[in-house]
Amino acid sequence: MFRKNIHSYMPLYLVLGLHEQEGRSALEIAREAIAGGVTFVQLREKNAPLRQVLEQGIQLRELCRNHGIPFVVNDRVDVAILLDADGVHVGQDDLPGLEARKLLGDDKIVGISAGTLEEAEWAMEQGADYLGVGAIYATFTKQDAGAAIGTDLLREVKGRWNIPVVGIGGITRGNAPEVMAAGADGIAVVSAITKQSNPQIAASELRGIVDKNRLLNQQLP
Amino acid sequence: MFRKNIHSYMPLYLVLGLHEQEGRSALEIAREAIAGGVTFVQLREKNAPLRQVLEQGIQLRELCRNHGIPFVVNDRVDVAILLDADGVHVGQDDLPGLEARKLLGDDKIVGISAGTLEEAEWAMEQGADYLGVGAIYATFTKQDAGAAIGTDLLREVKGRWNIPVVGIGGITRGNAPEVMAAGADGIAVVSAITKQSNPQIAASELRGIVDKNRLLNQQLP
Repeated sequence: MFRKNIHSYMPLYLVLGLHEQEGRSALEIAREAIAGGVTFVQLREKNAPLRQVLEQGIQLRELCRNHGIPFVVNDRVDVAILLDADGVHVGQDDLPGLEARKLLGDDKIVGISAGTLEEAEWAMEQGADYLGVGAIYATFTKQDAGAAIGTDLLREVKGRWNIPVVGIGGITRGNAPEVMAAGADGIAVVSAITKQSNPQIAASELRGIVDKNRLLNQQLP
Repeated sequence: MFRKNIHSYMPLYLVLGLHEQEGRSALEIAREAIAGGVTFVQLREKNAPLRQVLEQGIQLRELCRNHGIPFVVNDRVDVAILLDADGVHVGQDDLPGLEARKLLGDDKIVGISAGTLEEAEWAMEQGADYLGVGAIYATFTKQDAGAAIGTDLLREVKGRWNIPVVGIGGITRGNAPEVMAAGADGIAVVSAITKQSNPQIAASELRGIVDKNRLLNQQLP
């Protein structure tokens, strides 16, 4: 249901794991973040036992369903199917998009990460529904995220293809306007929401910045 | 097709990754190992990009099919489905057996690892078709295999349940008889085949030891 209208869900994309942050469970963080304006949730958990991922994932999945926003699982298509998630987000070393699509069917979302133009080309060939481009800025959240690439690739991708794109990697209130000005449809964040003392306020502020810049972009000639 | 008669395929169970060993590709190792008497192949590859796992996995899958032996994938049920593998082998932190079964259907194999009696009980509850018990001896192949547990658990499991069991972890020609004497239906090995200068001879020697001891076990009162 979300796939056909995916552009609407790009503005504020939350990526989160299952560990507690600042005394809050992942479910609590997600609940507050959604109340603050998050429009998309990706579960990215690389270390927890999968039985725990299933147990907690089903709660996140229900939360997102109740709020009418997409919930996708990073990397594991099998887990996405078991959770009846709305799709998957795959990196360049995960299952290729077309293979994920075989398992998920036509209704589900397949998002793909890209850090170079070649990776973006491959993601397009693999039928990506949206791209996550980054790491835009330096990040300590994702160990294997690679060096910061800035906003050039994002601009190039948006100039070349008609596909929704979120920027990801080290995005904060301070640099979010720059990401949006480069043509992003939204921003994907981890710690800018999960590590804040008040995730709802953090999300609300980020959402305000994104919405303001989306309006500005639409007014450009 | 293999699930109903799985006991027959336990004698010499090869676990292998996709990296070259001693100048041989995984496919070459598997081919030689099967020629030497391997009766079961598990692909366990944790690091390679999944598109490579799919490319090489399909070759291993065809090899095993042509030789009439089961081929299963470690951990990733999605990859197993895409390869049309004969099933999966899951550890305690991977997808629970019953969840894997939901995705795979009734014809496929679900093997489960156990290193304690509690883990074995859980594996039985999760509908394991066979158990991999270990690490029996110290191993350097699998970083997270845990301390060597010897053959006591294997003996206990075989005494308690009627399920096929392979011992795994540090098994060599020297200690294989001890594993079989504890009641194992077979041995699972990695380096005892993959790291040998002649995998076919290594497999043949191991298979001989297993078969001899299976005969001995049957002759016990």
